[in-house]
Amino acid sequence: MTAPACRACRGEWPAADAFIADCGPAKAYLHEDQFFAGWTVLVLKRHVTELYDLDPHERGALMDVVSEVARALAAVYAAVKMNYALLGNQLPHIHWHVIPRAADDPIPREPVWTHAHAPRALSPAEQRTRIDALRVRLGR
Amino acid sequence: MTAPACRACRGEWPAADAFIADCGPAKAYLHEDQFFAGWTVLVLKRHVTELYDLDPHERGALMDVVSEVARALAAVYAAVKMNYALLGNQLPHIHWHVIPRAADDPIPREPVWTHAHAPRALSPAEQRTRIDALRVRLGR
Repeated sequence: MTAPACRACRGEWPAADAFIADCGPAKAYLHEDQFFAGWTVLVLKRHVTELYDLDPHERGALMDVVSEVARALAAVYAAVKMNYALLGNQLPHIHWHVIPRAADDPIPREPVWTHAHAPRALSPAEQRTRIDALRVRLGR
Repeated sequence: MTAPACRACRGEWPAADAFIADCGPAKAYLHEDQFFAGWTVLVLKRHVTELYDLDPHERGALMDVVSEVARALAAVYAAVKMNYALLGNQLPHIHWHVIPRAADDPIPREPVWTHAHAPRALSPAEQRTRIDALRVRLGR
């Protein structure tokens, strides 16, 4: 996939109203499915597919903001554990899934993807509240 | 969980015969289930739970070896895409899952965890062959 065909590069995904913050080499958005509350995606600003295609400096900067966002999510959502995944099977443009796992998680020992469920979309007001809380925590 | 109770710290997991290579801050092993061929785990040598508990230098060094191993796996297994995940829901000691996704993957667009299957254990000879190929590629 080249950048012109990429939904992330074209600005078609994620939705603009899910935007949380500009985080250096990436932008953070709330994931469209909030069944696992706080699920966030961090999308690299430029089109790169694999982690090993980044030079160490850029990769380090990306992982620093992944960690910063994970720490904020863990605090805001009182996570028992954070999960981090870079898959890109459907959209091969580097984006990190950063997922708080809560104390009342329905499958605490398993990856979120094993749990079939109806996606949960937030109301605009609820989305706004969550994004504001994360921005405060991130200081952005 | 403290280090004395941790199966990784006690050397109970992963199995010693799955060892691929010493990679600086981590050690690489073939995952016990090779249904998705080449699935590798990179286990941090010291007991840390979250990515944000590493200082940036150590985190960068870890991600450099995750990337190095991913590049080797992509070559040896002719991967269409690499997947990377740090979950730790069952064992909260940093270990990266690095998973090649093959051209004949049964669920090319989905995370591996969505695909129920009988785990595939390798014969000792087959495991040896795969580990040797990875060591050659890694130059270790």
